[in-house]
Amino acid sequence: MTRWTTGNTVTTESEPSDSAPRPHGFSRRGLIASAAAAGGTGVVGAVAGFGIGRSRVTDRAEAAPSRDLSGANGPLTEPFYGPHQSGVETPPQAHAHFLALTLKTGIKAAEVVRWLRLLTADAAALTQGSGPLADSEPELAHDPARLTVTFGFGRGLVKLAGQKLVPTWLGPLEKFSIDDLDPERCTGDLLLQICGDDPLTLAHARRMLWKDSRNFAEVAWQREGFRRSYGSQGEGKTQRNLFGQLDGTANPGSGSEDFARIIWGQGTGRTDAVYSARGEPPDNLGAHLPDWMRGGTTLVLRDIAMNLDTWDKADRPAREFATGRTLDRGAPLSGTDEFDVPGFGAVDRRGLTKISAASHVARARDGLGPEAQIHRRTFNYETGAEEGAGLLFASFQADIERQFLPIQRRLAEVDLLNEWTTPIGSTVWAIPPGIEEGEYIGQSLFEG
Amino acid sequence: MTRWTTGNTVTTESEPSDSAPRPHGFSRRGLIASAAAAGGTGVVGAVAGFGIGRSRVTDRAEAAPSRDLSGANGPLTEPFYGPHQSGVETPPQAHAHFLALTLKTGIKAAEVVRWLRLLTADAAALTQGSGPLADSEPELAHDPARLTVTFGFGRGLVKLAGQKLVPTWLGPLEKFSIDDLDPERCTGDLLLQICGDDPLTLAHARRMLWKDSRNFAEVAWQREGFRRSYGSQGEGKTQRNLFGQLDGTANPGSGSEDFARIIWGQGTGRTDAVYSARGEPPDNLGAHLPDWMRGGTTLVLRDIAMNLDTWDKADRPAREFATGRTLDRGAPLSGTDEFDVPGFGAVDRRGLTKISAASHVARARDGLGPEAQIHRRTFNYETGAEEGAGLLFASFQADIERQFLPIQRRLAEVDLLNEWTTPIGSTVWAIPPGIEEGEYIGQSLFEG
Repeated sequence: MTRWTTGNTVTTESEPSDSAPRPHGFSRRGLIASAAAAGGTGVVGAVAGFGIGRSRVTDRAEAAPSRDLSGANGPLTEPFYGPHQSGVETPPQAHAHFLALTLKTGIKAAEVVRWLRLLTADAAALTQGSGPLADSEPELAHDPARLTVTFGFGRGLVKLAGQKLVPTWLGPLEKFSIDDLDPERCTGDLLLQICGDDPLTLAHARRMLWKDSRNFAEVAWQREGFRRSYGSQGEGKTQRNLFGQLDGTANPGSGSEDFARIIWGQGTGRTDAVYSARGEPPDNLGAHLPDWMRGGTTLVLRDIAMNLDTWDKADRPAREFATGRTLDRGAPLSGTDEFDVPGFGAVDRRGLTKISAASHVARARDGLGPEAQIHRRTFNYETGAEEGAGLLFASFQADIERQFLPIQRRLAEVDLLNEWTTPIGSTVWAIPPGIEEGEYIGQSLFEG
Repeated sequence: MTRWTTGNTVTTESEPSDSAPRPHGFSRRGLIASAAAAGGTGVVGAVAGFGIGRSRVTDRAEAAPSRDLSGANGPLTEPFYGPHQSGVETPPQAHAHFLALTLKTGIKAAEVVRWLRLLTADAAALTQGSGPLADSEPELAHDPARLTVTFGFGRGLVKLAGQKLVPTWLGPLEKFSIDDLDPERCTGDLLLQICGDDPLTLAHARRMLWKDSRNFAEVAWQREGFRRSYGSQGEGKTQRNLFGQLDGTANPGSGSEDFARIIWGQGTGRTDAVYSARGEPPDNLGAHLPDWMRGGTTLVLRDIAMNLDTWDKADRPAREFATGRTLDRGAPLSGTDEFDVPGFGAVDRRGLTKISAASHVARARDGLGPEAQIHRRTFNYETGAEEGAGLLFASFQADIERQFLPIQRRLAEVDLLNEWTTPIGSTVWAIPPGIEEGEYIGQSLFEG
């Protein structure tokens, strides 16, 4: 859903062009270099088929023409000011750094406000492609590439503004049998979710925001995740996780009425197709959010370790049985297209249900009320060969109790996919609303 | 030097377009959403200036129009077969995974050949966008995004093919006073340099190649590095490291005669402008490479830790004095443009040399013969807030003794930049030549 490209088209000249698939990347320059090389060695003899340093497109059916992307996505920005924070409805960027911070002992509300003012000012500058005042490498900020900084507040921070302002749900989730949580990965008073399409910009932004923070807080935990790079696959396509599954099919569309209701908790009296397939939803999903959170939402952030080695031992039919979807297109086993509504009653010739009642899709969707919908904004991680791999599962919803927990409880009870996954980190965050210029993130909490 | 874009142009339609800088990302959809939000909260009042979920370009002078990048760079491939391996002359991708492996005890040459055949077949498939035969998540291979896999051989591996085939330079570099090497970061028999523009493709490729390897070898060490994402800055622009310096200005151009001579060691009797500025170079830089390496080159891979905290304490004049270049444009202090030849004799009004003799650029370039040139293909790393940061400095050259070491010795003696940098890892690799289809990487070594 990269709406910023609307109205722009790309054309390619006909000669020379990489738009037509070729069996080999062949160029005059490559030919010369190859001939030179062939003179000095017996290893390389044939010249045809060598193409040095020249990229070409694959000959797969979905191959698109190559395009001049020079400086194309670096200048793109996401808004910093607005009724909602960016980084929730924003189409996910290629990279995410999650940085959870714990307040230093004895910090008072006034100091937190000072810190939030500082972070707000610097995040506003960085996301718009400018180095903050104290930036000693401002050039590293000049390609924002859709940088967003999203603030999440933990219980400890909200409490400083007043015990009465703390929502009941803001704290650890109930225990689930599937969990094997590392206590260190379940803490934090402030979360910075820093996302962007350029890894250098992102590293710089994290460093600047950390420098703003180190007088006020300590690192609780941090994690880096990734998705496909900007532009590497077709617009609006659902991305894959490290199991090869399409991940996020059921998300409400960015900018849709569904999104406003399900995530921002703003009833509009209308329904979109995806949502109405489950029946008319209530309009007041955000009714239980405290006043200071109007325009905000909630985030449940789960770190789900994935056992790629045992997953590799399952064959594709076993995997598809466990997920209830095909691996290639992500279609429910009752259908043919990714976005087909799963037919949980559909049976095959032998009279068996096509989608197992224990499959992930059945457990996550069948028999749940229309409220049980979330917006997942997930990022993969795999830190090295033989290192941990998994999914940073960021689930946004207006109401954790009515939307997230019913799904999570059912999945914890039974889900064939649980054989290969283990939640190892879990945190809950209040996402405060967006702000206008001159305000700071959290102002509605501390001065509301 | 992204030559694959040659001949392709991009045009944008006039309406609606992001090509003109705007003070605010403003859209009808954003207006509606903002109005809806404003009704439910006292925090956000003004509507103008809010633009939800809509990216826009920055209003910096260098801002380019946004373009439809949908599926634009995912299908791009670099050749796998050819006289040289890809990943050396290839314009650097956004991400690099360096995976150094140590042979298991007792492994014989025949087993290494089997392993290399396996790695070759899988690297050939992966780089062209196909999952290898044993790939259980082939969909993760379908967006190659310029994936390259470059093989480097360490002393232990070459020795298995025959003691006589081991070049004298293949082993640890001489000790330098600036080094503070971690012995574990200085080992390895096989290096896989896996580079690409898409992080998901890259993670999958590393995993596939590691699965090919774990019967034969163990992980010696691994490191991930990054540069700017594909397309986020202008074509051919030199990138920056975490100090904010432009990094790689003096590199020979990809595809140039210089490159063929300096890196591949193939004399051609011609000189390009950059090179001839230092005088006529010898034509036989690769003369001392063993026969099995014709078409190959050498790699010195240094892991250089950078102390960002102390660097931040130096002001810009101090930094520019230390590097000998301006930070904004990377121009030598004697000139105005990045690519100006440094004037080491140039003096200011007070008669002082404009470029300090102890500066990095002076030490790296002044007084060295025309042979002392390398091709640096560097990647940044910064693993988290308060974590290590630095540069994976990959230096390619035909002859380590004549090209790399003279520079390294001078920099180790005196270089103002040494105050903020510490080499903590150092390895030397033989980069075997490229191959034709049907051959395997290393065939010239084991069957030459």
